[in-house]
Order: sequence, then structure tokens, then C-alpha cells
Amino acid sequence: MSSSPPPRGRPRDPRSHEAIISATAALVVEVGYAATSIGAVAARAGVGKDTVYRRWSGKAELVFEAVFTTTDDAPIPDTGTLTGDLAVLLESLVDEFRTPAGTAALPGLLADFAADPALKARIRTHFLAPSKDRLVVIFDRAAQRGEIAADTPVNLVLDTLAGAVFFHIALVGESPTPQLAGQLAAMISRGIQIR
Amino acid sequence: MSSSPPPRGRPRDPRSHEAIISATAALVVEVGYAATSIGAVAARAGVGKDTVYRRWSGKAELVFEAVFTTTDDAPIPDTGTLTGDLAVLLESLVDEFRTPAGTAALPGLLADFAADPALKARIRTHFLAPSKDRLVVIFDRAAQRGEIAADTPVNLVLDTLAGAVFFHIALVGESPTPQLAGQLAAMISRGIQIR
Repeated sequence: MSSSPPPRGRPRDPRSHEAIISATAALVVEVGYAATSIGAVAARAGVGKDTVYRRWSGKAELVFEAVFTTTDDAPIPDTGTLTGDLAVLLESLVDEFRTPAGTAALPGLLADFAADPALKARIRTHFLAPSKDRLVVIFDRAAQRGEIAADTPVNLVLDTLAGAVFFHIALVGESPTPQLAGQLAAMISRGIQIR
Repeated sequence: MSSSPPPRGRPRDPRSHEAIISATAALVVEVGYAATSIGAVAARAGVGKDTVYRRWSGKAELVFEAVFTTTDDAPIPDTGTLTGDLAVLLESLVDEFRTPAGTAALPGLLADFAADPALKARIRTHFLAPSKDRLVVIFDRAAQRGEIAADTPVNLVLDTLAGAVFFHIALVGESPTPQLAGQLAAMISRGIQIR
């Protein structure tokens, strides 16, 4: 007579899920990362705290999903060239780092990742997995076109793309030019292309 | 009858300077970034706090210099190729991020940079300036050899190199392989070479 709980990560009620995500993004902008609490998110979303904890391990994971996974469900770009596909990915990444929520969330999120070994250990397997999945599709197509080798190191390229955008915009505080995504895409795709 | 103070940034006594830097790096490893204070550094170095504040604006600047400028005075690599020169630079960068002091200092340092707009505004002009100067020399030589265009964007390449190493090692926590610096150097130099 026991029934399994739904798998972690699948919302029972899509409306609650959406309300929690929206409340989180709004709170981070309004009060900052440090002052954002699971209790405040739950109150604003009109759900109980247990509903939040059923889906997310804690604040860092919730804020990450609310702020930095906004394009995970977008169609994977298929422009016909590696450079074009990477440019689309990078434009989304640049946009995420520039949103008010992204700007407000990032420093505290980094500090929490750095301070919590269990959370940090999940960056590759959990937080970066959807981005890697998208890049793998793009690389497979590029390999089929003969643009890159089939063994191109996906993780290293992903870290380089994300690291470049993070360092340039979030750390150094550059205002990205309209050319930024295209410049980076051209540099990295040329760097890994077969010639 | 007034004499100017020595310009900020030039130590009056090289022994004090060295003692302060050593004390800072040791303290960060022993007690962590958060618990490292200017008072504790001064006591360990055997100098007054005013001697520290005469040279550094505060903890973040002092820790940055103690931990992340260890190769600023090394000879600029001149291997004969852009890829070779970048590989040497990247090896030094990878080593800095892997030291106990680098690992201990980085999260707190990032949080302080993010939380202090005045400090953050000086990342490009102050903290990254020596690295950029070294890269400019390497790029000038590469341009003279015809490897890259004279207008290659130095800041963007610098941010990409530093961001890739930061993201891969410090954030995601990868143990760098012996090939890492060479792989990144090959990718980025191919990405900007004239062909």
C-alpha cells in the first residue's frame, strides 16, 4: 500500500513550479541573493516550504534554476555551421549574465558553490549537464559535416565558452558589444576546426 | 620643506614587503580567506598595520598580490610560436589556481570583488594589467611573424584564457591534466591565427 513519490526534479504541479521559479527570480532582484530565503520564496509563490524543498535541495539550486536555465528548453540552434550555432548559444549565455537576476545572483551563487563541497561536486553532473547536452548535439552535427573531429573535448570547450563570458561580463564587468557572441564563437570554432 | 611620500605601490623596504606577502599567503592557507585580517598579517610579518595600509588598499588587494601575481616578474615566454608562448603562460596560470593559497583565496576574493564596485572597477586597470602587458608582448611578436593580425583583441583573449582556467579548475573543480595548458593554448592560438 505504499506509493513511490514522484521522481525528484519532476514538479507535481506545473503551476506551483512556475510560481516558485518566478518568485525566486523576482526576489533575487528585489532583495539580493543573500536576503532571498526559501521561506520568502514559498510565501511569495503561495506554497509551503516543503513544496520547495521537495523539488530543490536549497537556495543555491533554486536560484540557479530560476536564473541560469532560462534557455535550456529552447530549440538547439541548427544554423548549418559550427560558428553560427555557437554564436546563438553564446548570445543566450551573454543575455543570462546580463539580466538583473543574473547580475544579482551570481556572486552569492559562486560563493555558495565554493563553500559547499557537495554542491560544487554537482556543478558538472547537474548544473552544467543540460548545456553540455546541447553542445553535444551541435558538435555531432559539426563532426558529420567534417568541421571538427569526433573526439573534440566537449567539457573543455564548454568551460572555455562559459568561463570567457563569465570572466568578461560578470567579473570584469564589461558591457558586451553586439559583436561579442560572434567574436567568441568565431575564435573558439576556428580553434577546434579541422583544417 | 615638504617631501613627497614614495609613490603608492613602491615598497619602502623590500624586506617588509616580502614579509607581508609571505605572511599573507601563509595565513590564507592556515585560517582561510575570511579569517585573514590585515592585523594578523601585520603581526605575523612583524610590521605595523600602517605599513600594510601604506601599500595595499585592503585585504582583497593584498591577497590578490600575494597569491595571483607570483609569475608577473618571470621572463615573458619567447618560444618562437604563439602556441608555445600561450602554453607557458597558461601553465603558470593553472599552477596559481592549484596552489593551496590559490584554492583557499579564490572564493572569498571573488565575493569581495563582486561586493565592492570600486574594487571591481579596478580589476581590468589594476589587477589584470600585468598579465595584459605580457600578452601584448607575445601578440606583438606573433604579429611580426605573421601569425596573427595586429588588431587581435587582447582583452577578450585574456578574459577567455583566464576564464577558461578559472571555470575549469576553480569552479568545476577539475584536476588539470598535464595536457590542459597545451590544449587550451592550441585551441585559442588556432582560433586567432591568420590562415
